[in-house]
Amino acid sequence: MSSLNLNTWARPRFMLKQATRSRSMNFHLFHSLTKLHISSPTTTKQKKSQLSSFYSSFSVSAVLTKDDTLKGEEEKEKSAFNFQSYMVEKACSVNKALDDAVLLREPQKIHEAMRYSLLAGGKRVRPVLCVAACELVGGREAMAMPAACSIEMIHTMSLIHDDLPCMDNDDLRRGKPTNHKVFGEDVALLAGDALLAFAFEHIAVSTADVSPGRIVRAIGELAKSIGAEGLVAGQVVDINSEGLSDVELEILEFIHIHKTAALLEGSVVLGAILGGGTDEEVEKLRMFARYIGLMFQVVDDILDVTKSSEELGKTAGKDLVADKVTYPKLLGIEKSREFAQKLNRDAQEQLSGFDQDKAAPLIALANYIAYRQN
Amino acid sequence: MSSLNLNTWARPRFMLKQATRSRSMNFHLFHSLTKLHISSPTTTKQKKSQLSSFYSSFSVSAVLTKDDTLKGEEEKEKSAFNFQSYMVEKACSVNKALDDAVLLREPQKIHEAMRYSLLAGGKRVRPVLCVAACELVGGREAMAMPAACSIEMIHTMSLIHDDLPCMDNDDLRRGKPTNHKVFGEDVALLAGDALLAFAFEHIAVSTADVSPGRIVRAIGELAKSIGAEGLVAGQVVDINSEGLSDVELEILEFIHIHKTAALLEGSVVLGAILGGGTDEEVEKLRMFARYIGLMFQVVDDILDVTKSSEELGKTAGKDLVADKVTYPKLLGIEKSREFAQKLNRDAQEQLSGFDQDKAAPLIALANYIAYRQN
Repeated sequence: MSSLNLNTWARPRFMLKQATRSRSMNFHLFHSLTKLHISSPTTTKQKKSQLSSFYSSFSVSAVLTKDDTLKGEEEKEKSAFNFQSYMVEKACSVNKALDDAVLLREPQKIHEAMRYSLLAGGKRVRPVLCVAACELVGGREAMAMPAACSIEMIHTMSLIHDDLPCMDNDDLRRGKPTNHKVFGEDVALLAGDALLAFAFEHIAVSTADVSPGRIVRAIGELAKSIGAEGLVAGQVVDINSEGLSDVELEILEFIHIHKTAALLEGSVVLGAILGGGTDEEVEKLRMFARYIGLMFQVVDDILDVTKSSEELGKTAGKDLVADKVTYPKLLGIEKSREFAQKLNRDAQEQLSGFDQDKAAPLIALANYIAYRQN
Repeated sequence: MSSLNLNTWARPRFMLKQATRSRSMNFHLFHSLTKLHISSPTTTKQKKSQLSSFYSSFSVSAVLTKDDTLKGEEEKEKSAFNFQSYMVEKACSVNKALDDAVLLREPQKIHEAMRYSLLAGGKRVRPVLCVAACELVGGREAMAMPAACSIEMIHTMSLIHDDLPCMDNDDLRRGKPTNHKVFGEDVALLAGDALLAFAFEHIAVSTADVSPGRIVRAIGELAKSIGAEGLVAGQVVDINSEGLSDVELEILEFIHIHKTAALLEGSVVLGAILGGGTDEEVEKLRMFARYIGLMFQVVDDILDVTKSSEELGKTAGKDLVADKVTYPKLLGIEKSREFAQKLNRDAQEQLSGFDQDKAAPLIALANYIAYRQN
């Protein structure tokens, strides 16, 4: 995996040009991966066995569960920084802010539908990333909290729309019936639209103690992470690639960089902008987010074939059923694991210039994303 | 109709509190209408005959057609201000700006779907209202053009999602097959989402020569006009009221104020904010927009029962088929006509404090909305 060169991703044109439509230029950045030895596709059973060994070798389980066991490198980290307490504290702040942001008002049905999915108890990784990035560059939690909530609203919207019958047609999400199963397809569609619109209202109206110039810049970044150059671009290419036998690694990377990494990038970049970060800080954190964003999806792909629906809180194995291209399918479990490790190292390298105590939450979040169990 | 009192709509709490969640408080404002004599429901044939007489009495036909005939009051207006030329010129600017804003880039399919509906040749009433309001308060067209395009993107998004099988299930829009008929339901859903997100990116990134404070305020207003306190609120209550026999006028007004008037209000208010209007000017124009917004829907309801699909460029009579509550159904054609006239007068009263030459485009737009034929 040492032959991997992801540095091209960090081209100066991405680094320095704020709010350009640069993400689409990432399309061919990972083609060097295709030079790797790609292991023969393994069976699901083999994959499960390989991945189980992968996780046990790191011995870091999901955060926000009571059986965390931290060993080795993680043990050192624990002494200086209690990640679990940090996540619980921040996730509680986010949950309270979300609960306050979308009240159960008239018309009740749409607000009920919005709140049903928004408050369904996700891990709040994106909003916590946003707040952590804000605090890393010297800002206060409150400066980033409306943006953090907006990002979670958009993430929730994408899940509601993704689950609709005309998309993934999913019945289960976060262990509960999907939005359209409870409220009907029409209301679920509108609840997604309303969450998307309200995300922008919330960041524009509720962000305090930040200059309007930084708020406008943050809104531009947030919007870019969602649309046809961001999240939606990944979804469309994903849909088009289903059932195709010749999907290449560069297409898969395009899908994931847009479908998953874009919003994680938005989370971190918004926090850095709103917290008052310099352009250089914002762009370093952007690169950090791109690496962990892709890593997030590599791990997601592995989890999909190695965990049960009960463990994931959503339908497992659906990539296999939909015959979707995934990292395990293209690289095999072992190479996927190595790729995730490499992405995690590269991500953390971006943080080397920051105060390491202040960077501890982001370092721990990267490790959490790498080693999560659901 | 003189007993109508719509002034309560103009309560000071609406007038002076920017970016509050005030629209939901309009719910009971039109209840005085229920005191009117409500004529017995007429047949569709009778309604068509009555409305035909209504329109011929005003003799103002649709703009952007070659057979405009302006008589009476409108003739005087024509001498000072050529509305048709104005609309053609502004709509051309808007069309060019929209064409430039959403280019056919990768991934092609989603951009093609976005452009298919966005450039399908609507009348561009909303963006022209935005530009006209900007110019009325002393701004330049360019200051409002990104916002004007954003509003048209959002209007287009709402049409794409409205036409989906899980909503109105419509096959025809602006005389062409609906988006999902051409691109499939999944891509149509995503094209709507992408347009909604890109609307915010465009206004945030492309608005020039306007202070960031005004841009943030405009974004807050735009978002509010779409979400669960705006457009979506109207759609949800509309869906809930289908097939009910006891829908009251106040519910109908809630639906229309939110489903139609909110985005027209957003159009005018954004133009006024970005053009540098004072708070008083912005709020007068907000009231103007609310009156014409409701009028727009009263006229739409009448057109639905009096015109053919060919004349409208969309499926006619669908309110009757869906057993939707409409103004003609509740008030009869004659009272609906009087109500539209009253709303037009009240709207134009809001413009009395402005330079009348500069206000000519908005006055003409109000008349156009009142007397349009499709």
